[in-house]
Order: sequence, then structure tokens, then C-alpha cells
Amino acid sequence: MTEPPRDARERLIEGTRELLWERGYVGTSPTAIWRASGVGQGSMYHHFQGKPDLVLAAEQRSAEQMQRDIRACFAQEGSAYERISAYLLRERDALRGCPVGRLVADPEIAADGRLREPARETFAVLHECLVSALEDGRNAGEFAADLDAVRTASTLAAVVQGGYTLARAEASAEPYERAVQGALALLRLADR
Amino acid sequence: MTEPPRDARERLIEGTRELLWERGYVGTSPTAIWRASGVGQGSMYHHFQGKPDLVLAAEQRSAEQMQRDIRACFAQEGSAYERISAYLLRERDALRGCPVGRLVADPEIAADGRLREPARETFAVLHECLVSALEDGRNAGEFAADLDAVRTASTLAAVVQGGYTLARAEASAEPYERAVQGALALLRLADR
Repeated sequence: MTEPPRDARERLIEGTRELLWERGYVGTSPTAIWRASGVGQGSMYHHFQGKPDLVLAAEQRSAEQMQRDIRACFAQEGSAYERISAYLLRERDALRGCPVGRLVADPEIAADGRLREPARETFAVLHECLVSALEDGRNAGEFAADLDAVRTASTLAAVVQGGYTLARAEASAEPYERAVQGALALLRLADR
Repeated sequence: MTEPPRDARERLIEGTRELLWERGYVGTSPTAIWRASGVGQGSMYHHFQGKPDLVLAAEQRSAEQMQRDIRACFAQEGSAYERISAYLLRERDALRGCPVGRLVADPEIAADGRLREPARETFAVLHECLVSALEDGRNAGEFAADLDAVRTASTLAAVVQGGYTLARAEASAEPYERAVQGALALLRLADR
């Protein structure tokens, strides 16, 4: 245990993120975490109370990154349609899926309000950004005047998450791309 | 091991479905399967070569049921819009998620072409039903003449799958309902 404490904490968080991703909550055992992180066994309990605490820290890290990316994407210059399509089309590894959304497919995480919180919060940030862009576009005459921004924002967020599911089932990014292109076309068709 | 063989096989499949649902692939251990199914330990290897074989049988059972439900839903009387909304709005336990779609969120299942197949096949059946309904509706003047049926079908399938993800993150069916209602409204707005 010669590593500096902050570095060990960091490695534990990153190791847990990787394991959650590859093996899910049940497959992320304390032993696997120590091994993946390359820290001494005692280090985990020095930095974290136990597995749920460490998993929460790993989830929060993924959630923060995603919230920053979402906000940056919607803060770009351009029309509402351009900002929304930049978000939907931004480079993604559709086959890996959403680092945050996939967490709640995990039964253990979905059942625990505390472990579900980072995903809930991230989707709330996304929803807010989408509603705001849709309202801007409606006010600017880009979208139909009677477009329901709140419902449409949920539709667009669902298209991204569900696009990942379809892509994983086919082991191909194509269904993701079709789903997103179809949603953008519907937004366009709705304005005329 | 006094149970008749077919009954033991059936109980193994149903026990595995339940475990996959509650604990995911990694959490579905052979021991847990014997216990959940209430059959003798030898019975599993009498009926199945091992865990992957049994998981595949459990997945195929879920996939067959869902494909039957999808086909029944789209075979109903009514306009294309009515058939599509009947599918999107049909009673679902949004918080539990899709018994087929959730399988591919599991890293072990997504990584194995054989275990991924029941989900791929089910989404192919759904896609076919949606494309056909969208084409009918376009031909009947219910939807915009330039609606892309193939892409829109992927969008609608993604809305359902992603709606589950949003619902699980919030522990509420509301985001699912908003996503689906928003998609139906876009289909309607697109025709005018």
C-alpha cells in the first residue's frame, strides 16, 4: 500500500466503473474491485464503507461526466433543431450503450433509491435541456405551434436510450441511427 | 425426483426466467436455478447441457410470448394509427421493463450471439409489424406521404424500450407515458 491515498481512491472508482459496465452490480464483487483497481485489500475499506458506497461513487462519476456533456451539447450555437440533432447524433458507441441509462437495467440498482439517484438526476438534466430547446424552437417557428415540449422531450430521451437497446440486440449501430433519424424527421414533418 | 420429467423441465425454464429477471445472467447461478425451480440437482443436467442452454430456453420462452402478443396487437381491427397506439399504450408494467429488451442490457448476454438471438428476432418481428402499419397508414392518407416507414418503425420501437429505462430511473411509469404520448402526437402532427 505505497500508493498515495487520493490515487488509490481514484483507482477504486475507475475500477468499479469498468466492472459495473462489464459485469453489472452482482458481478462487481469486492474482490474483483480490488483486483481491477490494483490497490491493497484494506484500501477499499479505508476509502469507502463498502460496495454500495463505492458503486454510488462510480455512478456519480459517470453521471457528472454525462451531465457536463449534455449541457455542453445544448449550449452550442445554432437553431433549436441543430442543437437537438447535435445531441441525438453526437458520436456514441451505440453498442456499448449509455453508461448511465444501462445502470437502471440492473435489478439491484433499480431497486435501491440511493443507487438509482445518479441516473434519475442525469435524465432530469437532459429533460430540462430538451424542453428548453423545444420551447425555443416552437417560439422561433421551427416546430409546430402546438408541439408539447414536455412530452416530446421524454420521447427524444427515450429514443436515445431505446436506440441503444435495439443496437445491442442486433450487435449493430444501424437500428440506433434509424431510430434517431426517424425522430428528427418526425420533428421536421410536424412543422408544416 | 418424483416429479414427471416434463414438469421438471417446465419448472426449470420458469425458475430461470424469474431469476434472469430478478438477478441478471451473472446472478443466475445453477444452484439458484435448482432452488428456484424446486427440482433435484441432477434434473437440470438431465434436461439441459448447462446454464447457457437453460438461459437460452428461458429467453426463447419470453421471446415467443412477446412475438405472439405483438402479432395479436397489430392484427386487431382499426386504422393504422389505432393499431400503433394500441401497441404503444397497451397495459405494461413500465417499471419492470421489457422481459426481452432488458436481456440485452446484460453484458454476458449481449456478448453472446446465441443468447442475443431471441431479442434480435423479437425486435425484427416488431419492426415488421410497425413498418407494415406505417405503410398502411401512409397509403390511407393517415400519415404524411413522405413519412419514412422503416426509420419511424425503429423510432417507435426505441421509444418503448427507452421509455422503460426512463421509468426505471424515476421509479414511476410517468416518463414512459409521456414518451409514448409524445411519439403519438408527433405522428399526428406530421400529417397536415
